[in-house]
Amino acid sequence: MVTDVGTKVTKFKVGDKVGVGCMVGSCRSCANCKEDLENYCPEMILTYGAKYYDGTTTHGGYSDIMVSDEHSVIKIPDNLPLDGSAPLLCAGITVYSPLKYYGLDKAGMHLGVVGLGGLEHMAVKFAKAMGLKVTVISTSPNKKKEAMDRLGADAFLVSRSTEEMGLAMGTMDGIIDTASAVHALLPVIGLLKVNGKLVMVGAPEKPPEPLAFPLLIGRKMVGESAIGGIKETQEMIDFAAEHNIVADIELIPMDYVNTAMERLSKADVKYRFVIDIANSLKPF
Amino acid sequence: MVTDVGTKVTKFKVGDKVGVGCMVGSCRSCANCKEDLENYCPEMILTYGAKYYDGTTTHGGYSDIMVSDEHSVIKIPDNLPLDGSAPLLCAGITVYSPLKYYGLDKAGMHLGVVGLGGLEHMAVKFAKAMGLKVTVISTSPNKKKEAMDRLGADAFLVSRSTEEMGLAMGTMDGIIDTASAVHALLPVIGLLKVNGKLVMVGAPEKPPEPLAFPLLIGRKMVGESAIGGIKETQEMIDFAAEHNIVADIELIPMDYVNTAMERLSKADVKYRFVIDIANSLKPF
Repeated sequence: MVTDVGTKVTKFKVGDKVGVGCMVGSCRSCANCKEDLENYCPEMILTYGAKYYDGTTTHGGYSDIMVSDEHSVIKIPDNLPLDGSAPLLCAGITVYSPLKYYGLDKAGMHLGVVGLGGLEHMAVKFAKAMGLKVTVISTSPNKKKEAMDRLGADAFLVSRSTEEMGLAMGTMDGIIDTASAVHALLPVIGLLKVNGKLVMVGAPEKPPEPLAFPLLIGRKMVGESAIGGIKETQEMIDFAAEHNIVADIELIPMDYVNTAMERLSKADVKYRFVIDIANSLKPF
Repeated sequence: MVTDVGTKVTKFKVGDKVGVGCMVGSCRSCANCKEDLENYCPEMILTYGAKYYDGTTTHGGYSDIMVSDEHSVIKIPDNLPLDGSAPLLCAGITVYSPLKYYGLDKAGMHLGVVGLGGLEHMAVKFAKAMGLKVTVISTSPNKKKEAMDRLGADAFLVSRSTEEMGLAMGTMDGIIDTASAVHALLPVIGLLKVNGKLVMVGAPEKPPEPLAFPLLIGRKMVGESAIGGIKETQEMIDFAAEHNIVADIELIPMDYVNTAMERLSKADVKYRFVIDIANSLKPF
């Protein structure tokens, strides 16, 4: 919620429902900024743990009130809740942007999503809203019910099943893969049709497996994508509002953070923790 | 030249100036064939050394007369010579097709071409005709004059010069690379802008260097491409005719073939040998 605006602010007024995503600054003059790709600006300032213009360290949304340049602020549509919308500004745009950029947003296309975590559950929701057929590819057969019944995926592939993977070969137009560090790429690329696109998103902790080009025969491509620009983030959240898409979250108070971190390390959350800062900081 | 046509032939008549490229057959019913991508049809039949429908081995153009399904035949525009056009049907389409498919065909874009052989000299010619800025990247400084003065490249980079490569970092929209087996990819990818595309074409003899995904940060992508479909081959040669593009060739008689092979192994040809079969087979 906007509590005050500077005299030169034109995009927002007091009382507007807003959010700030992964970025709080960029140079605004480079070729990337001019094309609304602040996310690829060499001087982009991340919302957390980065150095701001005044030399202070950015602290993300870990306070009950913050000051931001209006350029970095996203209008949250009225029908979206703040808590479920918060991860849209990071996980949401991270998967929405490559679906659009790589042309994997056409109804009837077949998308594979590797794994089923925070990014992936958003990929399933956005791709379904765009009219795609979505297949979740996972090592864990026990995620099938969740993927299909609750998130609405059309199919589920157990990546350890040579038979299932074999039957699905050459059937996908695109694959969103956030987990390149922890699995072999050859079987995944084998799932692509001619002209298929494998898009790596997110930031793997380990360097991913190297890829040899013969795997790409059939005009396949491998591309990268990292979050998205401010303009596209607004477009994404407007699309989410239109299709009633929010992240599945668990709302926690601030003093639960250490427990949440332990649970995160065990992937024990469906699918994002959101910290309710304002209520945590309320005077007793 | 068409010397005779079957009763069901509709595209050609006797006397038409024609050529046959790398393919003489495909299934005509798969998804790829239906999208004019016969080059990615699993049943595609290569013009040389493949098994034809009747069980015989295909022998390419190594005879003075051949029978072909009209679907595989390309009309050669009147203003193009047959000898200089012949390599367009292989080297030409191999570089033209990815320039179009990957959107590297917009005037003002900056294209890098790695090396300067048969494929690469065609890439320079097509990209220049499309209005691109073209930089040839080569290990050999002594190819600079050839690349710029004769082929019309705008710039030349000596890949072994850390200084030259450093200055060119982040300046290219795309790179056509046929030589992935023999050079490191990191410096090449470093030449790309955000959204830049590295396209691997041709068939390297050695498996190319594996690529690790962190190299692609900045929404860069790596893609593959192999020749092109029949419809696009016709489009390519019509474009070539409009812009007076032919391959630089050395026309040889058939009995020079062994010498030509020896010279090829030393890359001693600018840039393609073309065998004059008809005149070689003339009765004495």
